[in-house]
Amino acid sequence: LLKMLGKCMSILSTVFTTKHPADSLVEMAKDQFYRRGSFNSYQSNTSDEDMVEIADAPLDFSLADDVPPLDREPQEGYTNHNGAGMNGASKIMDFLDEPIPGLGTYEDFNTIDWVREKSRDRDRHREITSKSKESLWALIKGLSDAFSGWLVMLLVGLMAGAIAGLIDMASHWMTDLKEGVCLVGFWYNHEHCCWTSDETTFEQRDKCPQWKSWSELFLDQSEGAGAYILNYFIYVSWALAFAFLAVSLVRVFAPYACGSGIPEIKTILSGFIIRGYLGKWTLIIKTVTLVLAVSSGLSLGKEGPLVHVACCCGNIVCHLCAKYRKNEAKRREVLSAAAAAGVSVAFGAPIGGVLFSLEEVSYYFPLKTLWRSFFAALVAAFTLRSINPFGNSRLVLFYVEFHSPWHLLELVPFILLGIFGGLWGAFFIRANIAWCRRRKTTKLGKYPVLEVLVVTAITGIIAFPNDYTKMSTSGLISELFNDCGLLDSSQLCDYINDVNSTKNIDDLPDRAAGKGVYMAMWQLALALLFKIFITIFTFGMKVPSGLFIPSMAVGAIAGRLLGVGMEQLAYYHHDWIIFRGWCSPGADCITPGLYAMVGAAACLGGVTRMTVSLVVIMFELTGGLEYIVPLMAAAMTSKWVSDAIGREGIYEAHIRLNGYPFLEAKEEFTHRTLAMDVMRPRRNDPPLTSLTQDGMKVEDVETIINETTYSGFPVIVSKESQRLVGFVLRRDLIISIENGRQRQDGIVSTSLIYFTEHPPVQLPNNPAALKLRSVLDLSPFTVTDHTPMEIVVDIFRKLGLRQCLVTHNGRLLGIITKKDILKHIAQMANQDPDSIMFN
Amino acid sequence: LLKMLGKCMSILSTVFTTKHPADSLVEMAKDQFYRRGSFNSYQSNTSDEDMVEIADAPLDFSLADDVPPLDREPQEGYTNHNGAGMNGASKIMDFLDEPIPGLGTYEDFNTIDWVREKSRDRDRHREITSKSKESLWALIKGLSDAFSGWLVMLLVGLMAGAIAGLIDMASHWMTDLKEGVCLVGFWYNHEHCCWTSDETTFEQRDKCPQWKSWSELFLDQSEGAGAYILNYFIYVSWALAFAFLAVSLVRVFAPYACGSGIPEIKTILSGFIIRGYLGKWTLIIKTVTLVLAVSSGLSLGKEGPLVHVACCCGNIVCHLCAKYRKNEAKRREVLSAAAAAGVSVAFGAPIGGVLFSLEEVSYYFPLKTLWRSFFAALVAAFTLRSINPFGNSRLVLFYVEFHSPWHLLELVPFILLGIFGGLWGAFFIRANIAWCRRRKTTKLGKYPVLEVLVVTAITGIIAFPNDYTKMSTSGLISELFNDCGLLDSSQLCDYINDVNSTKNIDDLPDRAAGKGVYMAMWQLALALLFKIFITIFTFGMKVPSGLFIPSMAVGAIAGRLLGVGMEQLAYYHHDWIIFRGWCSPGADCITPGLYAMVGAAACLGGVTRMTVSLVVIMFELTGGLEYIVPLMAAAMTSKWVSDAIGREGIYEAHIRLNGYPFLEAKEEFTHRTLAMDVMRPRRNDPPLTSLTQDGMKVEDVETIINETTYSGFPVIVSKESQRLVGFVLRRDLIISIENGRQRQDGIVSTSLIYFTEHPPVQLPNNPAALKLRSVLDLSPFTVTDHTPMEIVVDIFRKLGLRQCLVTHNGRLLGIITKKDILKHIAQMANQDPDSIMFN
Repeated sequence: LLKMLGKCMSILSTVFTTKHPADSLVEMAKDQFYRRGSFNSYQSNTSDEDMVEIADAPLDFSLADDVPPLDREPQEGYTNHNGAGMNGASKIMDFLDEPIPGLGTYEDFNTIDWVREKSRDRDRHREITSKSKESLWALIKGLSDAFSGWLVMLLVGLMAGAIAGLIDMASHWMTDLKEGVCLVGFWYNHEHCCWTSDETTFEQRDKCPQWKSWSELFLDQSEGAGAYILNYFIYVSWALAFAFLAVSLVRVFAPYACGSGIPEIKTILSGFIIRGYLGKWTLIIKTVTLVLAVSSGLSLGKEGPLVHVACCCGNIVCHLCAKYRKNEAKRREVLSAAAAAGVSVAFGAPIGGVLFSLEEVSYYFPLKTLWRSFFAALVAAFTLRSINPFGNSRLVLFYVEFHSPWHLLELVPFILLGIFGGLWGAFFIRANIAWCRRRKTTKLGKYPVLEVLVVTAITGIIAFPNDYTKMSTSGLISELFNDCGLLDSSQLCDYINDVNSTKNIDDLPDRAAGKGVYMAMWQLALALLFKIFITIFTFGMKVPSGLFIPSMAVGAIAGRLLGVGMEQLAYYHHDWIIFRGWCSPGADCITPGLYAMVGAAACLGGVTRMTVSLVVIMFELTGGLEYIVPLMAAAMTSKWVSDAIGREGIYEAHIRLNGYPFLEAKEEFTHRTLAMDVMRPRRNDPPLTSLTQDGMKVEDVETIINETTYSGFPVIVSKESQRLVGFVLRRDLIISIENGRQRQDGIVSTSLIYFTEHPPVQLPNNPAALKLRSVLDLSPFTVTDHTPMEIVVDIFRKLGLRQCLVTHNGRLLGIITKKDILKHIAQMANQDPDSIMFN
Repeated sequence: LLKMLGKCMSILSTVFTTKHPADSLVEMAKDQFYRRGSFNSYQSNTSDEDMVEIADAPLDFSLADDVPPLDREPQEGYTNHNGAGMNGASKIMDFLDEPIPGLGTYEDFNTIDWVREKSRDRDRHREITSKSKESLWALIKGLSDAFSGWLVMLLVGLMAGAIAGLIDMASHWMTDLKEGVCLVGFWYNHEHCCWTSDETTFEQRDKCPQWKSWSELFLDQSEGAGAYILNYFIYVSWALAFAFLAVSLVRVFAPYACGSGIPEIKTILSGFIIRGYLGKWTLIIKTVTLVLAVSSGLSLGKEGPLVHVACCCGNIVCHLCAKYRKNEAKRREVLSAAAAAGVSVAFGAPIGGVLFSLEEVSYYFPLKTLWRSFFAALVAAFTLRSINPFGNSRLVLFYVEFHSPWHLLELVPFILLGIFGGLWGAFFIRANIAWCRRRKTTKLGKYPVLEVLVVTAITGIIAFPNDYTKMSTSGLISELFNDCGLLDSSQLCDYINDVNSTKNIDDLPDRAAGKGVYMAMWQLALALLFKIFITIFTFGMKVPSGLFIPSMAVGAIAGRLLGVGMEQLAYYHHDWIIFRGWCSPGADCITPGLYAMVGAAACLGGVTRMTVSLVVIMFELTGGLEYIVPLMAAAMTSKWVSDAIGREGIYEAHIRLNGYPFLEAKEEFTHRTLAMDVMRPRRNDPPLTSLTQDGMKVEDVETIINETTYSGFPVIVSKESQRLVGFVLRRDLIISIENGRQRQDGIVSTSLIYFTEHPPVQLPNNPAALKLRSVLDLSPFTVTDHTPMEIVVDIFRKLGLRQCLVTHNGRLLGIITKKDILKHIAQMANQDPDSIMFN
């Protein structure tokens, strides 16, 4: 283990110095990738097969290599593939030996073949297992290989936790920097600054002499118009400076660092390759710019980007171990766990994080990953807690403790909040997607820096006068969730206390609202309107931007407003029939903080369509099973309402907007089409390009390769019979022919290529033949032309296929690629299902 | 919705009166099912195909119906299958219309076809959706159909919660009945009886005048040899009476009610059909006998059987709605959720229950089910709480509140507990399986009633003298988990108090153990030995018996022993280097209750191999994230240790012992065999029985049906070409021919059967031909003979197939059934992988 660690460390240094040197260059690639909307964007650069009617010619069979294997004598490679010294003809073995470099790797913006990747990993595992019986050293290596998975998870957890802690501390400090500075040391934030002071009273704990607002520093006055204007100006200036720095860094160093990253991570986890998206530059730039963006006061959160940051950590840690570096499927297991760790540190909710990864992000999530994700999430959470960025030993972002139970009748306002959350979620998705589409298609998209500056300026200018928008959004949510105690001095808790009350502090009765509460209500209502609109324009800009916190803020404001309203209603009208019995005077029957929490859950649910993970995250915030039912009622209502308006959550909508090849696992395919309707070639297309298993010359194959762009070709027995033998990848074919020409004697353009077991019979003076059986996939997936598309879609999803061949009565007819399916789904969704006729 | 409810109610009454009238008769079927060990038991009664070498005859093609469809004119059924008035030729439609009764149903002890079931449900859904656009009434019906899933979940939750509450109350009362009776009302248990009394002091709260032990009642003395012997005798007599009643009821009314039920539920959820296993008789008898078995004092728990009970509820509720009644796949979604509800009420842990269902029990678990399971689990938990069987408003079975944190060094004893748990788990599984195999194969199995009585007698006689075995096992665990307070009067908390202590009650320092603690240690050590051995013989008897509680008891005793040992070590040797710094005198550094909890988790993990769900269940018991790390360390160690000794958990071991056709989803298939090694026919077998698409007469087909027992036949173009057209099920074939003979004119034994689109050309005086294309599955799954078995196994698991056809270069070669795969896996596991040569 130690030796492996040492090796890993040396690789780590390599990773940080040589790998991905051109991360900032991917911008061009990405621009090209984003250039065209919807599905057109990946039509020209991924695997594709167009095709043709099959000639109805008289059939003739060359029986070479077509004898059913049961009639043969047992041969090496057919029957001996169980032994230890396995050198069978199975094509998988060839990948493991990797005799030809480059075989079995992928190009950028391509989809991986899950089946092949998993096979390769099983081969690797088998080799280690069989070797481990030979010597003690091999056994130790085998064990260290088995434990490297846990080690990777440990490192991911530690990294994610540490980075999250850093981000928290830095953004706290910089947020406060907009308002003032600490004289004891400029690196203290407001809270830390005043901790060191002994002179503060309980009520005035935020006002200590060490902390100077800018006006106090420059004008020596804290009140008055001049001071206000100066503070205003400096506040907006800092915001603009932070935002400018953030967007510039993103533009120059890591264009992939913008946005929340969750749509892209979903796509990557489903098997797509975007090189550099999870690289070290993205990690560094995203971490720095996330702090800047959050500090600038924009209406965005750090929770979504933290998932991206954690996945970057996962990807980088993967490079330490060959097991994960070399296998795309295994790496995605680590990434799934890293996503869980990201949510875990974002909210301090490890179980919620795992469920989020399972429900929302991951595509391939075996049970082994569940357990490891849980481990990574826990390690991350505890790392964050030992860094203790909030200085309060709390694991969770918003710690809440409610004292009074809720009443069954309160379900009505909770469901109302659910409806509000659903409506807002659906509205937000539509508006945001429309705006993002506008940005993509009009000139607007050409000036991302200007856009960010304008939005920041507007945000800063509007936000400053209102206390509830001036403070950081997570601070706002925290205050809204809080249940007012007797000694709380904030405006929101300005209730009129009954002086004669002898009750316990924990058990305050409902009280009449004072002036401050009414004032706060107005400010909150304005803040709600402002947040609702500005978030639409903020999410999708070229800075790191999460959506969890703004959504929760909208919901929390709405919930608190409703909660205070209910509370006052119950206080003044406790004789109403709906309040009678449970809300007598002097009882603590309504907790406005709980309403805020339920509202936050409803809005978050409306936007992201999370269900179980949402409730579990919220449950971990309160820690009491008591409040699961209100949360669940709101989350359920919100999901139903928003689903009724638009099926897609914000992440799916952005995936579709950007045209990523993502096959949604949750959505059922409900149309009645058959495989033959989707496969290519279509009716009037040229024939399916295929190779025959023997009889083709090198030059023939090279012509086909040069004239087509398909990423793979089916191999058939003969043009006449059209019976399928296997499938060969374009990349493998090119590499193998080149390799054969260079290394094997007598391979010229007129050499025959054969995919059969034995070389074809040749005239003696012909050039040597090139055997390519080793690159032939002898087990391509096939379906019949009558297979319903719902089953085909299911197969693609569950097995992670890239393509599938279509046969009719045993003869090759066409091919269906993942892209064909995506295109077909889009087509079916866009057209009226009653009017579809296939062209 | 109301109307549907009404309809459902009327059906419910039908269910309870007419359905499954012969539940007690299934005993015979089951005896037959259990008769033979291992795989032999289902070799003769499920789908099977034996096969043959394929003749190498000259090939000739009859081109009828073999023209690729692209060359044809668009026909109805090929192109019009998207419209609303769909009456296409797609075979799925035929199932929906169900023109022939019985088509598409399954026989007992058969495996369902997940693909077909899911297709059928999608068809049903499509029909409802397309109809719902036509009228308001249809729309309402569509909506009520959509919500019926939630309604079913609600009912399952309510039923499971209510039954769990009843079981809790009844078993509490009956357990106490063994010791005495309440004079105020015999239906009060000890605790309730003494609640009504005002005369009890805090210390003597268990001794109130209303509660009389049997000796007090009959001999008027509570102490002395005579009283002891009388109590002893009555205790054992009640135990024997309860056990006899339990085993008799199981034998006579519902043989399926025995055991924990989890292995069978896993098998059922994976797609097997065992009629009556989840019927109403099983539910009633299992509920009653579970109470009896728990009360008899046997070393068993109610938690596993509660999962079975909840699944019975799920199955019965499924009968209320056609959507679930008619579709085996949909019904299994409800059963998965019901399993979650079962664990939820067993431990008061809804999230843990859902994860248990996901990790341990379920096979097909779409995300929609996750959300609904969560709902059902919550409803069940809240129903149980409002019934409040423990009288303390607590949701959880063992409520624990620890006050002191743990120290990093304590991980060493926690990991030791993990090792103990793993060793015990592996030992228990081996011993229990060996004993169960003995029961199956020797005369022992013939006397289940006697066996139960003997084990009960031994248990009762040994248990009575020891306080910790005399009490109920869950009571024991509760006491062991408990952290000793200052006023606890139990023997385990008999510490020597420092009189000068001024500490808070919550923050007791470590204290020296008093005499009672040492006494308790000896008793606990004896109880540990007793529990370890008696549980081996108890689990698997013909009474309902769960394993969670006995496993946890073993672990909790071991943990508490170690914890008290550590505590005293730290108290007397606080100057040792390992204790210095964190365990100074007067500090509360070691919590023996936490050790008990960690030990319980370790043993439960060692037996069941649960991971995430185990930790989450335990987390929900304590409610603090603090203690997740110790639990996780123990659970992880325990799983590694027990996995190193034997791969299987107790449920998998019982599944294999009983020979259920269960394809384990967690275990990777690691061998290098190919599809051709597993498919049948083998080398020297007779040829694969197949039908040709035309040219066969009714009598030919009937001969094949009568001479073989295979549950399906591939249909090929012609014997010569061996090109595959489709697959037809035996059951469908028999029903269709019978139906054709009865309803269609001119169908006689010499009639031709054709599976093609158009009837074959016939001489005019020949009898009418029978078209069977509607029962032909035109999209059978195929793999090539070179497909590695690991991929085949993956396909079977993920798609839930029953069989898969094997082709070579487009020609049909053989068939692989689920059973072939299970047999192959067993073969590979039993043989030394280096010495396998295929016969």
